[in-house]
Amino acid sequence: MGNPVLVEVLRGNVVESRHRGAIAVFDADGGAVMSLGDIDRPVFPRSAVKSIQALPFVESGAADAYGFGNREIALACSSHSGEPEHAALAIAMLERAGLGADAFECGAHWSSQEHVLIEQARTLSEPTAAHNNCSGKHAGFLCTCAHLGHDPQGYVALGHPLQDAVKAAMEDVTGAAHKSDLCGTDGCSIPTYAVPLRALAQGFARMATGTGFAPERAKAARRIFAACMAEPFYVAGSGRSDTRMMEAGQGRIFTKTGAEGVFCAAIPEKGLGIALKCDDGATRAAEVMVAEVLAQLLKGDALAGTLHEMARPVLTNRRGFEVGGLRPSDVLDVQVG
Amino acid sequence: MGNPVLVEVLRGNVVESRHRGAIAVFDADGGAVMSLGDIDRPVFPRSAVKSIQALPFVESGAADAYGFGNREIALACSSHSGEPEHAALAIAMLERAGLGADAFECGAHWSSQEHVLIEQARTLSEPTAAHNNCSGKHAGFLCTCAHLGHDPQGYVALGHPLQDAVKAAMEDVTGAAHKSDLCGTDGCSIPTYAVPLRALAQGFARMATGTGFAPERAKAARRIFAACMAEPFYVAGSGRSDTRMMEAGQGRIFTKTGAEGVFCAAIPEKGLGIALKCDDGATRAAEVMVAEVLAQLLKGDALAGTLHEMARPVLTNRRGFEVGGLRPSDVLDVQVG
Repeated sequence: MGNPVLVEVLRGNVVESRHRGAIAVFDADGGAVMSLGDIDRPVFPRSAVKSIQALPFVESGAADAYGFGNREIALACSSHSGEPEHAALAIAMLERAGLGADAFECGAHWSSQEHVLIEQARTLSEPTAAHNNCSGKHAGFLCTCAHLGHDPQGYVALGHPLQDAVKAAMEDVTGAAHKSDLCGTDGCSIPTYAVPLRALAQGFARMATGTGFAPERAKAARRIFAACMAEPFYVAGSGRSDTRMMEAGQGRIFTKTGAEGVFCAAIPEKGLGIALKCDDGATRAAEVMVAEVLAQLLKGDALAGTLHEMARPVLTNRRGFEVGGLRPSDVLDVQVG
Repeated sequence: MGNPVLVEVLRGNVVESRHRGAIAVFDADGGAVMSLGDIDRPVFPRSAVKSIQALPFVESGAADAYGFGNREIALACSSHSGEPEHAALAIAMLERAGLGADAFECGAHWSSQEHVLIEQARTLSEPTAAHNNCSGKHAGFLCTCAHLGHDPQGYVALGHPLQDAVKAAMEDVTGAAHKSDLCGTDGCSIPTYAVPLRALAQGFARMATGTGFAPERAKAARRIFAACMAEPFYVAGSGRSDTRMMEAGQGRIFTKTGAEGVFCAAIPEKGLGIALKCDDGATRAAEVMVAEVLAQLLKGDALAGTLHEMARPVLTNRRGFEVGGLRPSDVLDVQVG
């Protein structure tokens, strides 16, 4: 048993490695469009749900109070690469709320993107919390605290009113109870709860359509998705998968990666939400899975061609010659007729 | 069906990700000590077999002709981190053979180790071929060509006499035919052939014991293993798994990682060879697998305690707090009584 192989890694004509996973595509009413593997097993969505976690930031009026536009809202939903524009905007957001960079409780790390890390190493002695890939989310959290009058100290901890609001939004959107025995700590120190892919997919369909939401939540969700799709660089960074897919999508697809091989996405015009996890946590495979699923769901559309190509990346050796590539397995390749 | 889950990744108390794989432990006569998963499916051994690929370098007399000791032989078997000592020694080896760094045909890349890359970014405009993790192997190849009077140009190509000698050594040691339809190109541009883990494990037992080898091959194999175990920094680098395991082993265990989740190892005193592959290609999981297998095979020994701990690495968040870890699955945990 176990989840099916969904992505193959080829070297020459030989399959060198295999990635298994599960994929759920649902509409907002809970109708399944695609279901592969075990979509009921709870998985940590990690950063793939930052757009949902940003609902209190918009709904509370914090984003408006500080005069934030698409870029700031996109950054609040981002796992950015720590490029100078990302770090600067995160700090600027805090300044609007009268806070300093010492308010961040996310910790610091060098960029995970080689080309960004090289520039960081040449210009910084050490990375700061503003360079943390989650600093935009944390800026949104801190601005919400400042606007609502919550003590910002300890805003990452279980039981802080900000985390209560985030958890309530997550439970409302996904419809899945967030159980304490399925709670872990995310890389940026906030609580993360394991929930089924089925619930995440339906939740993203609801984010895209507003189905079942109170009017102000539907409006906030629409605004958040629109902001991310309008400013995809601020959701990820140069060359990153989310940025490339949303740039290609020109406002028609929302995507967001999460650590350990998670991806959530939505196609608003079709009212569909997508949630997937690569069993082994590999980002390279999750990127193939989400691009392929989106390509299949948009079959016949010009955008599908770009996504189809993104689902088949080439591997080169150290001299730049093609030596292999990744591709969807037969199981994934034929899912949607 | 498929290979069993051998490594689990935990966040809090929840298994967040799972790595499958296959493991073979054999003696030099082909007796199985452990067999998990499909050990007959051909896998590319990648860099895990550099010690076998170094046999022509030692057997041809090249290593002696240029006055090389343990460090140079270890570097010829290495996937090093591109630290200054590694790059300098690779160039020094070429100089002894009257060759310049322009002879390298491996291509260049930045270090895959964050702390090394940061230093490289601060001291280099671009990495050179000497910084390629395979430059030591290529230095060994080039010195062998120079010593034997082969034209060094094209030494990486299929059909070059150097690659013929490497392939012949691989076939002799593993006993597995190297078939053209199972040939791919490695990251450093040389041919790589997929062979069963069973054959690789037995091959490493033979490297450790010399069983069935001609006397000069047995002597070369012993010398290569001894060199790697004596100079583990030159096989990998600061903080790397191979270096740490062989430092802890103090001459009692040989280990070598390969790309895409492969590991080969040997315990000479027990006459055992080990070969494994993580299905999805994850190094983090292959490192857990090899440490756990070695710990089990050395059960009751003080060294086993260190290896047992290396098989259970802790995961921390960006503030350094423990949030999870990796561990062998129950399937792997109970293999050797």
